[in-house]
Amino acid sequence: MEYRQLSPETVPGFLKDISSVQQIFSDLDDLEVEEVGDGNLNFVYKVRQRKNPEQTVVIKQAVPFLRIVGESWPLSRTRMNFEIQALEHHTKYCPQHVPEIFYSSTDMSLVVMQNLNRHAVLRGEMILGKIFPKLAEHISSFLANTLFPTTDWCLTGGEKKAMVDRFINPELCKITEDFVLTNPYEDHETNVYHDEVTQADKDYLQQDSQLKVAVAEMKYAFMNHSEALLHGDLHIGSIMANEEETYVIDPEFAFFGPIGFDVGAFIGNLFLAYYAHEVRQKMLGREPFEYRNWILRTAEETWNQFQAKFEVNWVAHEQDAPSSYWNYQEGHIGFALQRQRFLRHIFEDTIGFAACKMMRRIYGLAKVADIAEIPDLKARLEVERNVMRMAKVMVQQRSSFRSIEELSALAQEISPLR
Amino acid sequence: MEYRQLSPETVPGFLKDISSVQQIFSDLDDLEVEEVGDGNLNFVYKVRQRKNPEQTVVIKQAVPFLRIVGESWPLSRTRMNFEIQALEHHTKYCPQHVPEIFYSSTDMSLVVMQNLNRHAVLRGEMILGKIFPKLAEHISSFLANTLFPTTDWCLTGGEKKAMVDRFINPELCKITEDFVLTNPYEDHETNVYHDEVTQADKDYLQQDSQLKVAVAEMKYAFMNHSEALLHGDLHIGSIMANEEETYVIDPEFAFFGPIGFDVGAFIGNLFLAYYAHEVRQKMLGREPFEYRNWILRTAEETWNQFQAKFEVNWVAHEQDAPSSYWNYQEGHIGFALQRQRFLRHIFEDTIGFAACKMMRRIYGLAKVADIAEIPDLKARLEVERNVMRMAKVMVQQRSSFRSIEELSALAQEISPLR
Repeated sequence: MEYRQLSPETVPGFLKDISSVQQIFSDLDDLEVEEVGDGNLNFVYKVRQRKNPEQTVVIKQAVPFLRIVGESWPLSRTRMNFEIQALEHHTKYCPQHVPEIFYSSTDMSLVVMQNLNRHAVLRGEMILGKIFPKLAEHISSFLANTLFPTTDWCLTGGEKKAMVDRFINPELCKITEDFVLTNPYEDHETNVYHDEVTQADKDYLQQDSQLKVAVAEMKYAFMNHSEALLHGDLHIGSIMANEEETYVIDPEFAFFGPIGFDVGAFIGNLFLAYYAHEVRQKMLGREPFEYRNWILRTAEETWNQFQAKFEVNWVAHEQDAPSSYWNYQEGHIGFALQRQRFLRHIFEDTIGFAACKMMRRIYGLAKVADIAEIPDLKARLEVERNVMRMAKVMVQQRSSFRSIEELSALAQEISPLR
Repeated sequence: MEYRQLSPETVPGFLKDISSVQQIFSDLDDLEVEEVGDGNLNFVYKVRQRKNPEQTVVIKQAVPFLRIVGESWPLSRTRMNFEIQALEHHTKYCPQHVPEIFYSSTDMSLVVMQNLNRHAVLRGEMILGKIFPKLAEHISSFLANTLFPTTDWCLTGGEKKAMVDRFINPELCKITEDFVLTNPYEDHETNVYHDEVTQADKDYLQQDSQLKVAVAEMKYAFMNHSEALLHGDLHIGSIMANEEETYVIDPEFAFFGPIGFDVGAFIGNLFLAYYAHEVRQKMLGREPFEYRNWILRTAEETWNQFQAKFEVNWVAHEQDAPSSYWNYQEGHIGFALQRQRFLRHIFEDTIGFAACKMMRRIYGLAKVADIAEIPDLKARLEVERNVMRMAKVMVQQRSSFRSIEELSALAQEISPLR
């Protein structure tokens, strides 16, 4: 099939020929198409049957340029190949938290999938102060169940290297390398500052040698440590949820990288929301305590449950296929020590990457609406300074935190719950 | 060209058609071919013109099986592609320590190169107690000059990832993963023990949980940290030298891995020689002091010079292409701190990998003649136990050594110079 860019007009004709789609719609001549892509990279269409709107799919198609800029910024469509491969992996290991895929085509750089029409993007919902009681449970499962199977603990060396090869994803990794792990920490033209930001604020990030070395070490880990197949962009805008269900979408940044990058992306976004809601809860006419307390408990539970589930997966794998390496009298002690030390390493990476994800959302190009859409710039600046204070301690002292509770205690020290 | 396995009889006919070889020999009808491959994997032919034996080349050809075992152990000829690519890289960045390449063919899985006929394999020479006064200077240059250019400090993300892709080398990595980093530390059928080895000796390695976790961490680093293009097998049998010149050969294990693996391979082999020469110097009728002192000083100088040269390369690269990341008043302090912390990390990896290289040569499949050919088994066992004592401290406490001199002090503590 030759690539062509779809439009609302051409979508119905395209879908008509796909047998797996024919089974979803009772009448393929009665489709309604809405272009809803609010992302920076791709086009997204919601398709419904007019008379039976519960018959619905979503189409996501990549175009060969950066959508937010236009055709002047070329970006290879191959990003959709990574998304398709990653969705297949996520579906295999954690189907309950991945939208159902009905059809995909690397030629057309598109995927036809479940329309998550009873769910909303988590970031928007959290800005509105909605609580998701199962979020930590679900995301910790997604992380433990998608990450563990692609580590060297699980795959053979040959299997792992073949997968690493298939997921070498230089274009989208470069976006992270530049916009998350480099530009915000230097005087760079892509950074965006609002009017209240002072030179001292910028220097706090850009002229602190200790901080910059710590960030450079996280960047080095991102570029060198091919531990597992990551989602690669697991912020709260890549999650759609309601009170009962949670779905992870948009894995086009997938590549083999450090496990803590995925875990840290999510937890860093929770801390961003925590600081934002010192202001936002007041904007919503509420006392800040309850919601922000939920956010911190969610961060804690996500890490603690992730750690426990990752270890459960590891122990189960060892029971299924016992390693002769641990086959001696005290071998279980060695294996337990190995797990403990490895999870300790993931914890340090998680803290370091969470901090980078937080900092880049303050002074980098891409902001988070949680904070950037606080209308009172002075209030926004206070939130941003709190984020920076916390992130700086996190990345520099990432090896001295002993538990996730110490992190949420730090968050509360910087911005008390009440 | 279709692959065919050469023999001493077919070599002259093969060479005749290669224009770069035609320029070496004044008479292509008068060649003498000697099969000299003493390696485990490949066939090696020395070719000389009978009347002008200074007109000479070496041919190394891979066969599609493990030569030491035979056709029953298939091993893909693609290993020669890695060797050819790595030789090109080494020639580009450090020609003075790489044999000259006259011709290579991935179809034929062979390379025609300089015959190092005024040089000998370093291991054999060191067994005989020969001193190589320029060894540390040359190998530290080889390491610093071949490793730095393929790090993320030097390449762009895209360039690095493309190279990583070309050097995914699962077959030969698996040999290291199994025979260096797994089997020796468990009760494995491929391990080889001589008659004096006791169960307690085996348990010392195979039932020490702390040791095994430390080794597993080195294996994890080997499998996950794609820091630079490594030689991959830099023991003293992969080096040919005389008093003036040093050449590094046989880079078929090349892949993107942790820098400390190459540095540690060489330094670990020096420590093996140090312990071997407690016995060997007596066998040679000498006092152990001078030669063993030279070995330790060579280990120290190799690390110290490597560290200094790596940093010189890094600073020079930064001066050529200044990074805006360090472009602020105190930026030079940040950059210096980054180098210091990075080299500290390489040092810890070097110690850990050196220890694994030492241990596997005692109880694994492949021995080193330095120790394994000591005829008195009781004396050999004492040497082996000393190696094990040192290696265990090294790998477990790799993060607490502050200098290479502390390592050589430990070596002397375990086996005093006199």
